[in-house]
Amino acid sequence: MTSKEIKTLARSISQVENSSPKAEELLDEAWRSGNHAYRIGITGPPGAGKSTLVNCLASKFSDSGKRTAVISVDPSSPFTGGAILGDRIRMNALSTRENVYIRSMATRGSLGGLSMRTHDVCDILDGQGFDIILIETVGVGQIELDIAQAADVTVTVLVPESGDDIQAMKAGIMEITDIFVVNKSDRHGAEAMVLNLQSLTKLRNNYSTLPWEQPVIKAVATEEVGIDIIFDKLEQFEIMLKKNDNWESIRNERMKRKVLQLINEALSDSFWTQERKKYLNNELRLSEATDKSPFRIAEILLSSLRNT
Amino acid sequence: MTSKEIKTLARSISQVENSSPKAEELLDEAWRSGNHAYRIGITGPPGAGKSTLVNCLASKFSDSGKRTAVISVDPSSPFTGGAILGDRIRMNALSTRENVYIRSMATRGSLGGLSMRTHDVCDILDGQGFDIILIETVGVGQIELDIAQAADVTVTVLVPESGDDIQAMKAGIMEITDIFVVNKSDRHGAEAMVLNLQSLTKLRNNYSTLPWEQPVIKAVATEEVGIDIIFDKLEQFEIMLKKNDNWESIRNERMKRKVLQLINEALSDSFWTQERKKYLNNELRLSEATDKSPFRIAEILLSSLRNT
Repeated sequence: MTSKEIKTLARSISQVENSSPKAEELLDEAWRSGNHAYRIGITGPPGAGKSTLVNCLASKFSDSGKRTAVISVDPSSPFTGGAILGDRIRMNALSTRENVYIRSMATRGSLGGLSMRTHDVCDILDGQGFDIILIETVGVGQIELDIAQAADVTVTVLVPESGDDIQAMKAGIMEITDIFVVNKSDRHGAEAMVLNLQSLTKLRNNYSTLPWEQPVIKAVATEEVGIDIIFDKLEQFEIMLKKNDNWESIRNERMKRKVLQLINEALSDSFWTQERKKYLNNELRLSEATDKSPFRIAEILLSSLRNT
Repeated sequence: MTSKEIKTLARSISQVENSSPKAEELLDEAWRSGNHAYRIGITGPPGAGKSTLVNCLASKFSDSGKRTAVISVDPSSPFTGGAILGDRIRMNALSTRENVYIRSMATRGSLGGLSMRTHDVCDILDGQGFDIILIETVGVGQIELDIAQAADVTVTVLVPESGDDIQAMKAGIMEITDIFVVNKSDRHGAEAMVLNLQSLTKLRNNYSTLPWEQPVIKAVATEEVGIDIIFDKLEQFEIMLKKNDNWESIRNERMKRKVLQLINEALSDSFWTQERKKYLNNELRLSEATDKSPFRIAEILLSSLRNT
């Protein structure tokens, strides 16, 4: 990309992130130019080495001639946000490549908003013709699962020390993961961790509707060990998705989600007139003195809709 | 509570959990009978000893004559859900007390739904005249923060080993925590952990609008060490909230959230007629062949609303 193209893209993304007036037009255009990129979500607990792994994978995709975008989503508190600065610097070498684009996203306002904005940014990148979008999220909380779930494939990166966490592993992580990576696998406990994961993946494979068995891959990302295997598995997964019509159904689901979101926003916007907002605030101010319940207040507000 | 009262309460809660037709009436009644309970959220990483701590606190509240409810929310995967069985058994002794009620909630369907249902169950318990509602959540992900945030006070339980996690601590945890507990503080590293947390809490205290400094309390819950201090701090926090009108503003905010939720559901229900659903599904089926974007589809659907 020329520095001018990079600037234009960065501006588009910022407009979408800030919900500026032009955002809708930009997203509309992006959707019309298609939904072709392979979206790869990378998630896992802090310190698992996700950034290094993403770095390696982005290099490989770039080497193979694919236009590659990396979005690093950091839902950390503003107080601890500085922790990832090191990763950003490490990635700089990659960002000078002509076919690679890197963007960080941080929390501003609600986390639900972050997840939505991440989807929108992916759509913009997709519209710009990127072949690969790597979405890195820090942590294994709900927000990361939301984001990862928007991807075509989800890679969960763990380390031998994550053993204890697996017992209490967060909701859905077994279900949404397509590829497990045990990173830093030169450390003590790696083999036990792999066996542990393998026995858990058997459970999911019995439930899954996809003809896919979750692989558990050992890696040492800092020494580029295991990267080729992960890369190959990602390609196999893409082929599998396309062969089974899952590629289209994922895109349809994505479009449906966006339509529902737009409808919800429009309905809410047109409902909340100044008058109704005033009524609600007034009721809330009085709520201690009255016996009104939120059900009664909502009913009154909705009946005012029916009468106009 | 008599066993008949317990049965009635359990049935009401189940109806709310399952969104049965009677749920709205039950919740409406609950809201009208008031919103007086002190809601205490207890969150923290797996293995931090939250259940033991909640057990100790519930006993103390019960001893002091308060009607006490405990809700254990477990957003774990169905594959790992069995992990908390031990805690449930340990709690049984407590549940035979006359003024204590204990309820577990697990994931069914979406996690967002779990958070909403937890709020509703708290409202039911509140309406039943409980003085104290302890809400225990496993983990420090977004869902736990959502749930904890619905409480009047949030206690975050950590262990000396959580040190590494703090660096990458999840969004908002510093902001939403009112009381930190370093549990298992007889272990190595407890002192360093406390100092670490104390320096982080200084940051929040500069931002906070409440006249409250986050205490960092050392505890060994299995030996009931530190429980009295936590109990006192919880009482101090309640007094502080009531003195500063925060008690009312939290309840107003809660009522507002409920009104908004009810309005959103009603708007969505009345919008999505069979005809519109059919149109959307049809468009999605065709989306590969057409150049329609979700923006265009939403526009067409919304204009059909304006024309009717």
